[in-house]
Amino acid sequence: MSEPLFPTAADTASLERGAALAPRFDANGLVAAIAQHADTGEVLMLAWMNAEALKLTVDTGQAHYFSRSRNALWKKGETSGQLQDVVELRVDCDQDAVLMKVRPRGDGGACHVGFRSCFYRVVVQDGSLEERP
Amino acid sequence: MSEPLFPTAADTASLERGAALAPRFDANGLVAAIAQHADTGEVLMLAWMNAEALKLTVDTGQAHYFSRSRNALWKKGETSGQLQDVVELRVDCDQDAVLMKVRPRGDGGACHVGFRSCFYRVVVQDGSLEERP
Repeated sequence: MSEPLFPTAADTASLERGAALAPRFDANGLVAAIAQHADTGEVLMLAWMNAEALKLTVDTGQAHYFSRSRNALWKKGETSGQLQDVVELRVDCDQDAVLMKVRPRGDGGACHVGFRSCFYRVVVQDGSLEERP
Repeated sequence: MSEPLFPTAADTASLERGAALAPRFDANGLVAAIAQHADTGEVLMLAWMNAEALKLTVDTGQAHYFSRSRNALWKKGETSGQLQDVVELRVDCDQDAVLMKVRPRGDGGACHVGFRSCFYRVVVQDGSLEERP
């Protein structure tokens, strides 16, 4: 068995206030990862990272994810050109989610459907969806 | 068995471009939910919603989540006073994540540790964490 890429927090205090990145991966070995545009503040996408994707993101400054549908490591933008330069990486209180401030390259978008952000639909009054910038 | 609270999208086209909110709940019956401050754009927290929590959020305009640790529906702010008025609710391309623009009540915070946002720590150069506004 290979050495784990990240430590495990010993207790709640070190998990919440400690100086060690000790992500709490879920049963599938994943944490949630939010990409927010570094300049506009727009939330671009939510995806998943396994330990390897998180380590690569920290080490290279380029967003890496883990694709649940393809069950594979995924360097964002490798095929689309929408690489994400990570300006800042944050972790939340219980270390099961990370927040990245990114600058997308290529056409500046993040969504495979063709919108800038994956969150291109608003839930309107009657509970239906409307596409809206 | 009770009727499901939301429909299931028939195909990828209706999932991605349709006008029906048809969330794709995971194996545990959850979608990821991001709360972003409606005025500042700050990402406040990431949590989870089951169908009931999402329905209540849509119907009441107040953020409801599902607590994985307590295995229970959770109206945000019920005990802390940090209620979240939902200004806008969005869903992502494959409908397994929602984004809420919220205005937090009470002290204006969202994190149980006492910070305004749960993402109060930055991963710095050597991979360690630093608390930073």
